[in-house]
Amino acid sequence: MAESREFFTTKTVAQALAGFRPARRTPAQTVPLAQALRRVTAGAITAPHPLPGFARSTVDGYAVRAADTYGVSDGLPGYLDVTGAVMMGQEPTVAVRPGTAVAMPTGGVIPPGADAVIMVEYTTQAMPGTIEVVRPVAPGEGIVRADEDLRQGQAFLRNETMLRPQDLAMLAALGITEVQVRARPRVTIFSTGDEVVPPQTPALAPGQVRDATAIALAALVTDAGGEPAYAGIIPDDPGALEKALRDALPDSDVVVVSAGSSVGTRDETASAVAALGPPGIWCHGLAIKPGKPTLLAECGAAGAEPGVPVIGLPGNPRSALVVFRLIGMPLIRLVGGCAAAPPDPSTRARLSRDLASAAGRLDVVQVRVRDEASGRVATPVFGASALLSVLTDADGYIVIPEEATGLDAGSEVDVTLYA
Amino acid sequence: MAESREFFTTKTVAQALAGFRPARRTPAQTVPLAQALRRVTAGAITAPHPLPGFARSTVDGYAVRAADTYGVSDGLPGYLDVTGAVMMGQEPTVAVRPGTAVAMPTGGVIPPGADAVIMVEYTTQAMPGTIEVVRPVAPGEGIVRADEDLRQGQAFLRNETMLRPQDLAMLAALGITEVQVRARPRVTIFSTGDEVVPPQTPALAPGQVRDATAIALAALVTDAGGEPAYAGIIPDDPGALEKALRDALPDSDVVVVSAGSSVGTRDETASAVAALGPPGIWCHGLAIKPGKPTLLAECGAAGAEPGVPVIGLPGNPRSALVVFRLIGMPLIRLVGGCAAAPPDPSTRARLSRDLASAAGRLDVVQVRVRDEASGRVATPVFGASALLSVLTDADGYIVIPEEATGLDAGSEVDVTLYA
Repeated sequence: MAESREFFTTKTVAQALAGFRPARRTPAQTVPLAQALRRVTAGAITAPHPLPGFARSTVDGYAVRAADTYGVSDGLPGYLDVTGAVMMGQEPTVAVRPGTAVAMPTGGVIPPGADAVIMVEYTTQAMPGTIEVVRPVAPGEGIVRADEDLRQGQAFLRNETMLRPQDLAMLAALGITEVQVRARPRVTIFSTGDEVVPPQTPALAPGQVRDATAIALAALVTDAGGEPAYAGIIPDDPGALEKALRDALPDSDVVVVSAGSSVGTRDETASAVAALGPPGIWCHGLAIKPGKPTLLAECGAAGAEPGVPVIGLPGNPRSALVVFRLIGMPLIRLVGGCAAAPPDPSTRARLSRDLASAAGRLDVVQVRVRDEASGRVATPVFGASALLSVLTDADGYIVIPEEATGLDAGSEVDVTLYA
Repeated sequence: MAESREFFTTKTVAQALAGFRPARRTPAQTVPLAQALRRVTAGAITAPHPLPGFARSTVDGYAVRAADTYGVSDGLPGYLDVTGAVMMGQEPTVAVRPGTAVAMPTGGVIPPGADAVIMVEYTTQAMPGTIEVVRPVAPGEGIVRADEDLRQGQAFLRNETMLRPQDLAMLAALGITEVQVRARPRVTIFSTGDEVVPPQTPALAPGQVRDATAIALAALVTDAGGEPAYAGIIPDDPGALEKALRDALPDSDVVVVSAGSSVGTRDETASAVAALGPPGIWCHGLAIKPGKPTLLAECGAAGAEPGVPVIGLPGNPRSALVVFRLIGMPLIRLVGGCAAAPPDPSTRARLSRDLASAAGRLDVVQVRVRDEASGRVATPVFGASALLSVLTDADGYIVIPEEATGLDAGSEVDVTLYA
């Protein structure tokens, strides 16, 4: 019966990404700008006033009336009286009248009467107080308008956008020093398995293994914008896991269970999750290699409160990390309100050898990437899915999609690079 | 004279990346594994013992002697007596003798006498205590050797490597819970300019602008593995900048000065830096657009103590951020001991229009990236270099190398994507 339930609820990765879309979202919170890097906006942000706020010079030179420079050339220079100078960060004390110019630093306030700034390189000092101009300027040349960077009320950051360094710069330029963002999803991480002991265990008893998965999952949760909380190792006992999960639900936006690797413990995760209440298990089994024994669920919904998404990962650290990158990280971004995932680093390379793959299943193949005389080459790293070294030896991975039955040596592949 | 000095010390970006290689490195420090993500190793790390440390089953099934399965098939099954079961995380209590099998969970310890594990799917329970085997197994099948993941003494992490999530997993698996890494470079950030005021300034006087650059620089420093320290806005006064820089040197591994944008303040940075002592200015002027008025220096070397690298950035926030990505971030990684920069996300696209570029100068062009029916298209975002919106509107940038005089519409370009 466990077999048939598993069979009927196996999904493809594409189905999981498109179809498993829990409604849960983290609440909005206000953070200072210095803590807002890569946070996700909760609401669009509009410019409270125009930027730069005043017409500025973009060059070192002289503020002029453009009409005063029409027709001038090296052979027929024009002459303008310099009636003053604008100081950085200060209001001009003198206006530009016909036949006059005012010295300007880059970034200075354009004085009244001027409609252009001529670069100092196109002028010479003819005599004290007079410049010779050998090149005409058009109106607006050498000037940034008061609202050329942003108009007042312009929505320059959309809702559900991840803030980049330059976005922080723009917010600072506008004087916006705190911003409404989605709270980081609180992601509770459980390990299970009677054989699993904490990494700091000095000496292992026969058959014990240290928990390798939890710390890497915590890193991936952080990368996806979440806040990991490690909740320890649960023994292989259905009651213990169910209780631990139930206790974690109120303080979790997502729960991740890195399962025991044997059949029995895989079933335990499913029963414990099923006991937590609706909506329940969405799929048990993913058409992916490695990573088939993955469970996706939503649990503990109460009234209008949406449930908490739960991911049950395979027991092998390598399988668990592969699945978590493909399914878990997008889920955390979704709960954290991030509409579009940031791009992963990637590169194109030629495959060093043939790769077989079963149709209907997505294969994730770890590869090394090297530059050879013939170009960039991706060489698969093979090994049992129990081997973590397959992941640590790899520079990235390629995905063989469900519809393909393999890839030929020499084919061009997109490698997603680990960073 | 300032002109000629600038002329003779202008370098290309390639020259700066290859030639400006300050000797300064941050010291090694020990951090717990939970804080080691993306830190840079100080020294290679070797496996203190083999991993997994014992021969393990990779499947649910039965530990057997492979010879006992030779020649079996659906038509001619073999029969083995099941003499016990291995429990997860426990030492086997029974050995496998000829004609017998021991039940195995995935990840269990292989009992003495067994040299293979046959998957449960290839067996049936013939009668209580006896299994029928319909498929032969080879020696080693279904087993991960005790040192198959790592051999004792194997150097699995090189010196100057950035730790990835899976590297943390491997360290945890080995029981290594703290690692020697390079300290994060302490990067002191100064803004200068009489017109520049802090972002939190509620209302601006005419001609003032809020400091947009510092917070974005701090974000990029963090992205490069550094620890930013914002040291405030220095007025346009040669003495003030020199004093501020001198005070910052003892606590800085790198100093970044975001300069005033006018000619006068640019010269001030150069004189202040020159006054700090050898080795001094390496270049003043980079063949890059935007970003020409960039200064690279190394200051304050004393005895065997290497100097502190100093970067003087252009006054425009946009130019400053472009240059800092190309020159500043690699420099921080260098000082932080990171031998190879992590890959940036990127994508290929077709250019929407012709782009002109002067030979001998590297042009950085901001682009929007959109998927159209004809494929992915990169559309340049134009605007004065004083406009920050050119950066916030962009999805990434393309680089037109020194030797090119432009790019044609429709040419395929590599876009480095902002994340």
